[in-house]
Amino acid sequence: MAEKNERVVLAKRPEGMPALDCFRIEETAMPEPSDGRVLIRTIHISLDPYLRGRMTGPQPYVSGYELDAPMDSDVTGQVLASKDPAFAEGDHVMGFLPWQRYTVAKGKWLRRINLAVAPLSAHIGVLGMPGQTAYVGLLDFGRPKEGESVFVSAAASTVGSLVGQIAKLKGCHVAGSAGSDEKVAFCLDECGYDACFNYKTVERLDKAVKAACPNGVDVYFENVGGPMLDAVLKNINQNARIPLCGMISQYNLVRQEGVHNLIAVLGQRATIKGFIVEDHEDRREAFFNDVSRWIKEGKVKYREHVAEGLENLPQAFIDMLKGTYLGKMVVRLAPESI
Amino acid sequence: MAEKNERVVLAKRPEGMPALDCFRIEETAMPEPSDGRVLIRTIHISLDPYLRGRMTGPQPYVSGYELDAPMDSDVTGQVLASKDPAFAEGDHVMGFLPWQRYTVAKGKWLRRINLAVAPLSAHIGVLGMPGQTAYVGLLDFGRPKEGESVFVSAAASTVGSLVGQIAKLKGCHVAGSAGSDEKVAFCLDECGYDACFNYKTVERLDKAVKAACPNGVDVYFENVGGPMLDAVLKNINQNARIPLCGMISQYNLVRQEGVHNLIAVLGQRATIKGFIVEDHEDRREAFFNDVSRWIKEGKVKYREHVAEGLENLPQAFIDMLKGTYLGKMVVRLAPESI
Repeated sequence: MAEKNERVVLAKRPEGMPALDCFRIEETAMPEPSDGRVLIRTIHISLDPYLRGRMTGPQPYVSGYELDAPMDSDVTGQVLASKDPAFAEGDHVMGFLPWQRYTVAKGKWLRRINLAVAPLSAHIGVLGMPGQTAYVGLLDFGRPKEGESVFVSAAASTVGSLVGQIAKLKGCHVAGSAGSDEKVAFCLDECGYDACFNYKTVERLDKAVKAACPNGVDVYFENVGGPMLDAVLKNINQNARIPLCGMISQYNLVRQEGVHNLIAVLGQRATIKGFIVEDHEDRREAFFNDVSRWIKEGKVKYREHVAEGLENLPQAFIDMLKGTYLGKMVVRLAPESI
Repeated sequence: MAEKNERVVLAKRPEGMPALDCFRIEETAMPEPSDGRVLIRTIHISLDPYLRGRMTGPQPYVSGYELDAPMDSDVTGQVLASKDPAFAEGDHVMGFLPWQRYTVAKGKWLRRINLAVAPLSAHIGVLGMPGQTAYVGLLDFGRPKEGESVFVSAAASTVGSLVGQIAKLKGCHVAGSAGSDEKVAFCLDECGYDACFNYKTVERLDKAVKAACPNGVDVYFENVGGPMLDAVLKNINQNARIPLCGMISQYNLVRQEGVHNLIAVLGQRATIKGFIVEDHEDRREAFFNDVSRWIKEGKVKYREHVAEGLENLPQAFIDMLKGTYLGKMVVRLAPESI
């Protein structure tokens, strides 16, 4: 405990793609737990696309990061000292906590992690918010039926790759787009996609979607927005469902690109449904049970990209937004157990 | 019956706004009814925005007009001779029929009109397809709750003005946009809108929507698309519903304008739902009973613009697309009764 405490604060609001100077790492006091609270050593920090919006300021659906205040997201950690009887020293936990080496949090904000189910970091990835997003968005809003065609953008992402694999388990034709040949190979070779293409190298997006879903698209799980949405809209079938989960292609643009083919939503009686996973906590148990079982049975694969050390968080954040690496972006601050 | 028969055919597919030379009026044979069919003298022809799409060619949701073949839409008429026992000479009927002075149609394609309910032309307007579109779109997909704010584009149109009046009957704050001061006055003075503005003369659409719906928009009944959709998206509330009924601002553009604010659909967990009224025939009876009652009770007002004579149909069609006049555009070919 002689180690110093450090945290990441928002140093500057980005315009467009965040740069390293938007983040600042600074020393902060080592906190002491008071009654009902526990002291946690942070182990993993989850970096997710939606956090980009929080850097801009207050958003309609998430609180914005404050300037010069610590940034936060889902993290894992281990309890170093507890004044909440529900937690004991050594427990592994997760919570929505600051990007800080040592944190004190109310016990009721934390969830205990069972490492027998899956490794620690998986609990903030495929078994955490991104996984639940995939599960709720596909099953509750996409409602895929056996034999239908499901198209997934950002197909190799934490959310996208789980969507694709669940859709395969439901008996669908599954296709997607991703931003590198490595990601395409992951989708095809490990996730069981029937078709996948690198959107950066195909000649025309709409034709690539058509080739990937020759019978049209019944469910489009939308992670990216912009030209990909237009390309899929040209290929939707009657009564298509479009769960709108994210628009990562637009997050770093000062003005969003225009979407030109919305008339297809009318003609095909389609539905675009925006959703935010935090509204669907009632689905957490079903999600967690299903996906953890599928992982154990080898039916769901997932990948992580682990950046080591708090000092590398800013670059990892930028890499996450750029899609530089395959796999869920996680920053690891400490070994998984004391 | 010595009169000659005439019809309107599609002479040329339009690019952009149709011109007069896209239509041709030509003589055609006087038809004779065979068994199960009736001979009809056409009285009114309904001109509706969605017909513009049919001029372009086959569409995902409607059959396209064939070149040099008669155009068609909802019409009213009177039976001149019948070989279907269900219809008698003199009956007033409506059907989806060619733009032709005299037509033979199968009895089963026709619906008998009761003039005690409303005047003849109303049955292809506020009590016909456009009226049912408003009813189904607002009540089944918009699902307005008392006290919510409903915004309607093309607020004075056949569809829009009925949407606004039904929303008022449901206890909503109702606002809209229209394309002339006369239309705005109709909405405010006769239809009971709480607010309405001329979209051609306001400085900024998004601020005009904000002023018209200070508490935000819970239901946006979308008739126009393009910049108005963007302006409303900036003002939608959480869980907003956007029944997508039409996009008339886009029908005469070779490429649709881009919509830039779709991210609001995500942030506000909104739903955009395309629908086509013909899928909802099961709602016809409820619609017809409710709206005809509201008309009788003076709770629903409607307006028509009647163009006289088949020869004036092409210009009336263009005027309809341009929104030149207030009221449902109808072409009258003959007196309402023999």
